[in-house]
Amino acid sequence: MTETFVIAQGGGPTAVINQTLAGAAIEIRKRHKDARVLGALHGVRGIRDGNFVDLSALSEQDLRRIAATPSAALGSTRDKPDAAYCEVILKGLQKAGATAFIYIGGNDTAGTQQILADAAGKDIAFVHAPKTIDNDLVENDHTPGFISAADFVAGAFLSVDLDFRALPGIYVGIVMGRHAGFLTTAAAAWQLDEDSGPHLVYVPERAFSPERFIDDVREATSRHGRCIVAMSEGVTAEDGRSVVENLVPPDRLERDAHGNVRLSGGDLGMTIEELIRTGLPGARARVDTFGYMPRGNIATINETDAREAFEAGAFAVEAVARGGGSVALQYENGETSPQLVPLANVAGKTKHLPDDFMLPDTNQISSQGRAYLERLLPRKFDPAKPFV
Amino acid sequence: MTETFVIAQGGGPTAVINQTLAGAAIEIRKRHKDARVLGALHGVRGIRDGNFVDLSALSEQDLRRIAATPSAALGSTRDKPDAAYCEVILKGLQKAGATAFIYIGGNDTAGTQQILADAAGKDIAFVHAPKTIDNDLVENDHTPGFISAADFVAGAFLSVDLDFRALPGIYVGIVMGRHAGFLTTAAAAWQLDEDSGPHLVYVPERAFSPERFIDDVREATSRHGRCIVAMSEGVTAEDGRSVVENLVPPDRLERDAHGNVRLSGGDLGMTIEELIRTGLPGARARVDTFGYMPRGNIATINETDAREAFEAGAFAVEAVARGGGSVALQYENGETSPQLVPLANVAGKTKHLPDDFMLPDTNQISSQGRAYLERLLPRKFDPAKPFV
Repeated sequence: MTETFVIAQGGGPTAVINQTLAGAAIEIRKRHKDARVLGALHGVRGIRDGNFVDLSALSEQDLRRIAATPSAALGSTRDKPDAAYCEVILKGLQKAGATAFIYIGGNDTAGTQQILADAAGKDIAFVHAPKTIDNDLVENDHTPGFISAADFVAGAFLSVDLDFRALPGIYVGIVMGRHAGFLTTAAAAWQLDEDSGPHLVYVPERAFSPERFIDDVREATSRHGRCIVAMSEGVTAEDGRSVVENLVPPDRLERDAHGNVRLSGGDLGMTIEELIRTGLPGARARVDTFGYMPRGNIATINETDAREAFEAGAFAVEAVARGGGSVALQYENGETSPQLVPLANVAGKTKHLPDDFMLPDTNQISSQGRAYLERLLPRKFDPAKPFV
Repeated sequence: MTETFVIAQGGGPTAVINQTLAGAAIEIRKRHKDARVLGALHGVRGIRDGNFVDLSALSEQDLRRIAATPSAALGSTRDKPDAAYCEVILKGLQKAGATAFIYIGGNDTAGTQQILADAAGKDIAFVHAPKTIDNDLVENDHTPGFISAADFVAGAFLSVDLDFRALPGIYVGIVMGRHAGFLTTAAAAWQLDEDSGPHLVYVPERAFSPERFIDDVREATSRHGRCIVAMSEGVTAEDGRSVVENLVPPDRLERDAHGNVRLSGGDLGMTIEELIRTGLPGARARVDTFGYMPRGNIATINETDAREAFEAGAFAVEAVARGGGSVALQYENGETSPQLVPLANVAGKTKHLPDDFMLPDTNQISSQGRAYLERLLPRKFDPAKPFV
């Protein structure tokens, strides 16, 4: 029987998600000379609607060019299928003659694969290949997409810190991350010395207190002559609700299909600006929303990230041969490699920033956190220290 | 007599302003073996307060490392001295034994040099060396600092456009630029084809109408399946006031010492989000403020920009020999080179985006505008076209 692999991409794009797509497609043609490889457009929607592109028809050169292109070349979706939707997807897969379905995405994507695997029996192998700039998949040391986005964040904060040495003030950069603060901590990866920003790092894993924030900013400003703040868009208040949810008027809050409040960096940014305006009157304060800039930025694609994402895609084909599951990037004996874990281990779960990555009761990265960042994000730039 | 050169940096930092500093310092030691080179800290404030670093004491290697570092190594200032302040500066220069003062900055900086030159007579040579990401200095084909910032903007919009192909919606990126739209037009430099974003470009030189904006976004969305918007923070309404000034409550408007309204991308961003929420209900819309990220970003330092900035600094020393004036990057016969022009030609003047850089009565770049961008910003990335 001719093997038919269906591949799709789900959730937020990354700079290297196409590496995983190409890694899988190229490995399939190595192992299965006559296999069909169908790319479903816009994730499971493409399977539902029968929208496929024939990736088997592309040359390896074309696939490698797609690999080097950021964002999901097949398109993506935020759909998080329930059992009924999964039945429709299953019919679509059967209609396409699929013998395997590789779905590249985050923990929701793993969740979809689990429902499908439970419903389908053994005729189709379901594989989840990891991707997320949030770095929040359990079983993974880190996730494809994270390092490139983190490189962007590290370079931007290094640069903004130099800018604010020249013209002092308070700077807040708001970074994507609803539940996990990994990407925000990357702001500290390339600090030059003890005086370097970010001086304060706010992650969703630590409760945010507006009063405490103003005190911290005041103290950092008096110590460093400026204050650089890295803040996750998902920072939460003591009551566990997001700061945006607590402080933005309810009629402005936008919710997605799953009831999640849309975390616009803009809403949070204006809230933070207002806090500073009130709490530190007269201070020069600037807030930028990094938003979409880090996640698929073509100028900061990291080579290690690209290679690991490709390897994760290639290993997804091995995972098919082993009957399915979730591909996880694991770290052992100084090496990162893809391993196969059960879908249930990853589906719907969120890995949080380990508690010891931050110093207790502060907004500072600990030496453990720093060691992790230094391992994943070796310094790319080593500028001179300014005279000021 | 030993020559004493004072050098300072003014206004917003750029990615290559230290190239100009190093270019001048290295050229001085070539021409004047025993000259003293004093770097004034935080612009004219350093001269006023007698805060100098001795740049003559540094090795050429140290100077070259500083050159490669973004943001003003000497620190900067927003001070825009009046006649009385200039008298204090002049005394400071005399006290330091200055025979020349090279001030690296924008049109306000040129203005300071003009006041000083008029007051000082011939004992000190006053030179303005250009720098601004806004690209808004007259007499200059383009300004040091612009190309690096523009590279950032071009790459970010190319990337965000790919992101929004995968997950469609409306995206607005707000880019620095109070009076001149050059940096915002750079968003279009690396479009892949006619379908590529930005689909709409809003610059301060064209009046912004909220109603028209919504119509344009609706039309672009129906044509491209998504809408990517590049908008200058300084967009102005029909009445000539900035959109921020018109739409943000007066008690929130922050003004600087010159009465300029602070153009927070955040304020404008929230105003634009609200416009879209009201005008196109239910649309997925995201607004990011680029803010400080493009202007001194260490990840997107452009080699041509760095070289031209260095050459402008070296030529500033020649300008001293010729008695002072403003260094301008001019373009003739396919070559860019620094030339000497009178300070009065540049001081306090703003170069605007030429009217024919935009198509009449649209928010689209014209072929003239495109030719200028292509000359300054040769394509750095040529990704594959996605399947969606």
